Amino acid sequence: MFESAEVGHAIDKKTFRAAEEALRGELLLAQNALREQSKFPVVLLISGVDGAGKGETIAQLYEWMDPRFLSTFAFSAPSDEERERPFMWRYWRALPPKGRIGIFSGSWYSIPIAERITRKLSRGGLDNRLDQINHFESMLVNEGALVLKFWFHLSREGQKVRLKTLERNPRTAWRVTKLSWARTKTYDELQDVAGHVLRVTNTAAAPWIIVDGTDDNYRNLRVGRALLDALKAHLADSHQPPVAPPAPLITSIDDRNVLTALDLSQVLPDKKYQLELAKWQGKLSELSRHKKFAGRSLVLAFEGMDAAGKGSSIRRITAALDPRQFQIIPIAAPTDEERAQPYLWRFWRHIPRQGRVSIFDRSWYGRVLVERIEGYCSEADWLRAYAEINDFEHELVEAGAIVLKFWLQIDKAEQMRRFKEREAIEHKRFKITPDDWRNRKKWNAYQQAAVDLIDRTSTGKAPWIVVEANDKNFARVKILKAICGALEKALG
Amino acid sequence: MFESAEVGHAIDKKTFRAAEEALRGELLLAQNALREQSKFPVVLLISGVDGAGKGETIAQLYEWMDPRFLSTFAFSAPSDEERERPFMWRYWRALPPKGRIGIFSGSWYSIPIAERITRKLSRGGLDNRLDQINHFESMLVNEGALVLKFWFHLSREGQKVRLKTLERNPRTAWRVTKLSWARTKTYDELQDVAGHVLRVTNTAAAPWIIVDGTDDNYRNLRVGRALLDALKAHLADSHQPPVAPPAPLITSIDDRNVLTALDLSQVLPDKKYQLELAKWQGKLSELSRHKKFAGRSLVLAFEGMDAAGKGSSIRRITAALDPRQFQIIPIAAPTDEERAQPYLWRFWRHIPRQGRVSIFDRSWYGRVLVERIEGYCSEADWLRAYAEINDFEHELVEAGAIVLKFWLQIDKAEQMRRFKEREAIEHKRFKITPDDWRNRKKWNAYQQAAVDLIDRTSTGKAPWIVVEANDKNFARVKILKAICGALEKALG
Repeated sequence: MFESAEVGHAIDKKTFRAAEEALRGELLLAQNALREQSKFPVVLLISGVDGAGKGETIAQLYEWMDPRFLSTFAFSAPSDEERERPFMWRYWRALPPKGRIGIFSGSWYSIPIAERITRKLSRGGLDNRLDQINHFESMLVNEGALVLKFWFHLSREGQKVRLKTLERNPRTAWRVTKLSWARTKTYDELQDVAGHVLRVTNTAAAPWIIVDGTDDNYRNLRVGRALLDALKAHLADSHQPPVAPPAPLITSIDDRNVLTALDLSQVLPDKKYQLELAKWQGKLSELSRHKKFAGRSLVLAFEGMDAAGKGSSIRRITAALDPRQFQIIPIAAPTDEERAQPYLWRFWRHIPRQGRVSIFDRSWYGRVLVERIEGYCSEADWLRAYAEINDFEHELVEAGAIVLKFWLQIDKAEQMRRFKEREAIEHKRFKITPDDWRNRKKWNAYQQAAVDLIDRTSTGKAPWIVVEANDKNFARVKILKAICGALEKALG
Repeated sequence: MFESAEVGHAIDKKTFRAAEEALRGELLLAQNALREQSKFPVVLLISGVDGAGKGETIAQLYEWMDPRFLSTFAFSAPSDEERERPFMWRYWRALPPKGRIGIFSGSWYSIPIAERITRKLSRGGLDNRLDQINHFESMLVNEGALVLKFWFHLSREGQKVRLKTLERNPRTAWRVTKLSWARTKTYDELQDVAGHVLRVTNTAAAPWIIVDGTDDNYRNLRVGRALLDALKAHLADSHQPPVAPPAPLITSIDDRNVLTALDLSQVLPDKKYQLELAKWQGKLSELSRHKKFAGRSLVLAFEGMDAAGKGSSIRRITAALDPRQFQIIPIAAPTDEERAQPYLWRFWRHIPRQGRVSIFDRSWYGRVLVERIEGYCSEADWLRAYAEINDFEHELVEAGAIVLKFWLQIDKAEQMRRFKEREAIEHKRFKITPDDWRNRKKWNAYQQAAVDLIDRTSTGKAPWIVVEANDKNFARVKILKAICGALEKALG
């Protein structure tokens, strides 16, 4: 894998100066076009062995380009806010918006590689992590990002020579730490682990570029040139087809599905409801204050047709919780900062810390509901979203979150009854908008989209709970019971 | 101060139910109008003695209003990301955007009060903090926020009775901790400190509302009613005049000022420049990697006319820094999330952690430059900004940041020369926009604004460094020297 990087590359000063002159102007122009277009971000990973010149090359990029539109992120020990969330959360929050270049020095690869070398991570554990990384990068690429991954290589001898050279120069001596020398002792293990990591993550969407780190001129030009070429190609055609076109949905051949099979006539009489409500709210109140919950978190997503009772069901949940413990996130049109990011970004930013609850009133499923039906994104975009959503929820669960998704199902007549009821009550009137009437006309399309998303994203770890919601009492109690059940199971 | 809250308020269940019915509908309507207008945020502080029903009243507000547009924040121990920034940073990041209600349970008052009771904070230290809080709240109010501060009071006996009642009920027992009982022992100290705090912060802009916490019905209605009245009044007239109209600027009576007094003919010949540049970059490189800097941070702001050399000066600084250590924040039009917040919010979010550097290419001084000149804000807004900016920078310095502000001064002829030069070079052409030519026509207005801001905001702890920038070499070295000087002084 690293053979080509050991054949000995070097570029003399004169050749370098000449090449640099042209490259610099072109890079600046490309960077400016990137900003003007603001259609995609650039995610640049600079990884490799110690002493291979990662810092020097990043500094060179800052010299060549306009540093005001570059951001570099290094990830050492996670902060406590990061530790309490999924592994990828800290990288999501650092993603550059469209039009900018984000340089990741010590990216999502650093920790898995280090943990594998020190045997904190099993081979299987590493492969799971790499799988997750591949999905993440593939999502970035599908969302339009230009992802460039560089691995700076040095031979065993080459590394020692480089470190000594760096140490001798007072301007670069600080780059060499005790840890750098300690790591030379695990050179073979690093090569072994990195070889595996690079092979598994060398995807069509985001391939690795292995660079000989020995010679500064060669290494810097290699990276600068590769960045320029990739930028120009991406600027010329930013709407690339997704890496692998997702398989189409299977159309059903009868009317029977998870929604039509529901018995919507189920009701809970008021008196019984009051008792049940008090019982399960009490239970939820206890469970959310359980000692063990301080080490977990709860993520709830609510979907359903307009007036299905999402808001009022959420109120019955929050009544049992400490307001300091939860956030409700009502999903409306994204802000411009959110639009400049991959579509899941606006949900990642609201992922709760430990001991907290995030309740999404409408959710990331908008992609396969309203965006699918209204054509706000391409078919390929929403088709791949099912898998991306499953990955997202899987990461939450892996980090200790309890994830539950509720589809509140009412029938068309009940919706009409509620629309009219809302219009009759002054302080509810504002809840009915022209959008609601428009959406109602697309009832069947929404039903089909709901069936599809339940089929494709109801996983054991993040199940869909389909709720018969024609009777509000029945729905609310069913939801509370489901949350309590999941919490009890999780907290033991 | 607390006498009125001890006369014994209680409202019976029937009266409460009747009042609640009307209040609820009105609150919902007002909350909806708040969202529709999206012209101001509501900042609601719920403070007071333990057991006085803070949690219960917040829960009641959630029941009355639409919980999807309420957020509650509790502030216990700061996270490490918060600890490394100014005291107020964690509150700034929690501020509700326009159109929403943010409830602060345990606000910026909690820590100062607790620290004063335990004598961690001297009386003088407390008063400094309160001064800062008054300025902060006055800024919020001037920015249009509705700020409501409630203090829930209980008599000494009343507190014991409440805590026992809460403990007896299994649904509320969790609210009473060992700490609650421990705090009853310091009842007198709390009354004493709180009495002082409330008196000093009982401003015209954001007065305290003291509420008897004994009776749930009374307390909840008291808060609900006060919130509704304030909301309605604010909705009816959201463009209130600032609390105290700021004093106008003093006009100069001659042509002599900090800018005209500069000797712009100063130059640094290329050869000497190269030597000096290398020297000071080397120095800066060392200082930024100094052990002591790991506990400090550096905030640099660059202002000056177009083409004054801000960008290229910044490049000479960043060339000496580790790219993983700094962020450059180019200030352009605010995003919509930024527009929904007080104007300093977009700068607060980029305040560096310890050991880091934030470089602002244009800055919060936009308020008293472009916004003043173009009329993007009212005269009262930019007139009060000088003091708000001084407060902001003072908080940074108090938290250990080293704050330097550079005004790069060129003359009109030099600007024209640079504009033409940029237009002649392909990869610099995009730097010249119609805006630049428009701003040039307002040269004198900008000069006057610059003189005013230097006069009003050059403080000992966050000084302005006026840079003669007709010669780029001279300017860059002067800037580097100033940064090194400040760092050396700060790091000892």
